[in-house]
Amino acid sequence: MGILVVGSVALDTIKTPFGQVEEALGGSATYFSVSASYFTDVRVVAVVGEDFPEKHVSMLKSKKVCLKGLERAPGKTFRWAGFYDYDLNTAHTLKTELNVFESFEPKLPEEYANSDIVFLANIDPVLQRRVLSQVKSPRLVAADTMNFWIENKRDELIETLKLVDILTINESEARELSGEPNLIKAARKVLSFGPKTLIIKRGEYGVLMFNDGNFFSAPAYPLEAVYDPTGAGDTFAGGFMGYISSIMDWADPNLRKALVMGSVMASYAVEDFSLGGIKALDYKEIEGRFKEFKKLSHFEDL
Amino acid sequence: MGILVVGSVALDTIKTPFGQVEEALGGSATYFSVSASYFTDVRVVAVVGEDFPEKHVSMLKSKKVCLKGLERAPGKTFRWAGFYDYDLNTAHTLKTELNVFESFEPKLPEEYANSDIVFLANIDPVLQRRVLSQVKSPRLVAADTMNFWIENKRDELIETLKLVDILTINESEARELSGEPNLIKAARKVLSFGPKTLIIKRGEYGVLMFNDGNFFSAPAYPLEAVYDPTGAGDTFAGGFMGYISSIMDWADPNLRKALVMGSVMASYAVEDFSLGGIKALDYKEIEGRFKEFKKLSHFEDL
Repeated sequence: MGILVVGSVALDTIKTPFGQVEEALGGSATYFSVSASYFTDVRVVAVVGEDFPEKHVSMLKSKKVCLKGLERAPGKTFRWAGFYDYDLNTAHTLKTELNVFESFEPKLPEEYANSDIVFLANIDPVLQRRVLSQVKSPRLVAADTMNFWIENKRDELIETLKLVDILTINESEARELSGEPNLIKAARKVLSFGPKTLIIKRGEYGVLMFNDGNFFSAPAYPLEAVYDPTGAGDTFAGGFMGYISSIMDWADPNLRKALVMGSVMASYAVEDFSLGGIKALDYKEIEGRFKEFKKLSHFEDL
Repeated sequence: MGILVVGSVALDTIKTPFGQVEEALGGSATYFSVSASYFTDVRVVAVVGEDFPEKHVSMLKSKKVCLKGLERAPGKTFRWAGFYDYDLNTAHTLKTELNVFESFEPKLPEEYANSDIVFLANIDPVLQRRVLSQVKSPRLVAADTMNFWIENKRDELIETLKLVDILTINESEARELSGEPNLIKAARKVLSFGPKTLIIKRGEYGVLMFNDGNFFSAPAYPLEAVYDPTGAGDTFAGGFMGYISSIMDWADPNLRKALVMGSVMASYAVEDFSLGGIKALDYKEIEGRFKEFKKLSHFEDL
């Protein structure tokens, strides 16, 4: 019933050519949860420190996100600082303070054990498995990862991938994980590690999906004002998995619609800093942008 | 009554990570003509030297390309030498020998003056206008250009753009011509120079079209083996313009189909060196790949 997500809840300090924020709400689990909350119930497994502002807890609760699995540990909340140049596809990290994340031992509340759908957001692949092992019989498991784990915990990551149905990574990560410059060959190699479905995120160039011999390419939404790409990938995953959870069917045509829904949500995320772009949407608005995606990629048969 | 194209006919020496060719047939007018020949009659305005191999003339004739406007001048044929690294989106020029192109004064055969559709391939914008002025009443004028003219003949290029209905350029050229990093803003600026339709080529990321307030995004065809991207843009333009010429209708839905047809042709071009990928296709094959494009970008309504 709904989705279980494990990932980070963070305080981000970010600068882009269009502005900056200090210690704003961020983190993969946060973006994912708020995005998925428009479609389904979300249960969060994460950790914050004693300094985590109560207003962020309230905001998440207002989106009906279940926070029973959000541990409040002694110490400081995870912090990330970074910047983007005009090439908004590349994040430059200035500082990462793991803080309470350093000794995080995810323990699921008992009632989370019956979760049907699990999203393992970008964290240590060992932790990803540790969370998954506490879920009794998940029907669908999706995961994200990043270059840091590919480079430093490759074997652990490969172990995790054996348990994953759907993997979402970005283009350079797909190349790095596979060792293949050609994206089609890279995809085939990554699929050989375990996942049945691979989703490759390409920022402003959209998203590719390789699923069971089928290939799908979704455009990105043309935006005049991209302020901050932080969290776009997690917001994408939230829309994608949230939509799947709402229909509980992952046949190829439904995965395609879900992938466009993820792209819709990501397009809102980048229009403002922090959660500003996605925390106050209504479903009609989201449906409207889905229709615009349809229009912008439609062409007739010959 | 078919298409008139002015552009280069060249001998290319190219190295990519996947092989190399020496003095192979190339040039914007060549790729354009062969690509468009599957859809319509093509008339070429270009110049070659005394050394231009007869076998290339025969090949073009076998595609029913009209060569009455192909001047054979004293001297050597235009030559280009370059290479590509694994990033096949970027051509590195090693040598450009203009040769007979240096003093090219395009003179149209009388019968070309009644051409309905004109494609001004990537040459000096002054020459583009000189050709256009010899066509009595063109119904549709499209053009391509490149960074060299944007940087060195900007004012002349802007003059040419006033006469152009459809401009096809690549992503970095759109940003350079407009001075805008954001592509949507860049498009709006370029359209203010004259064209009604702007097509932005993004290599392996597909093609965008801005047309009369409409926005269309076409994916690129997923290829496992890209051997040589030379000529992909001109081949795209040939398929695009060729299809339009075959139906003589440039309403938005038809421009979209034409743009996909251009992408189909470009996908064949990059699968081999020189004209190898496009000189021996049949129309059934082309239609088949068009259908695959449809499949790879299709998703249902909510």
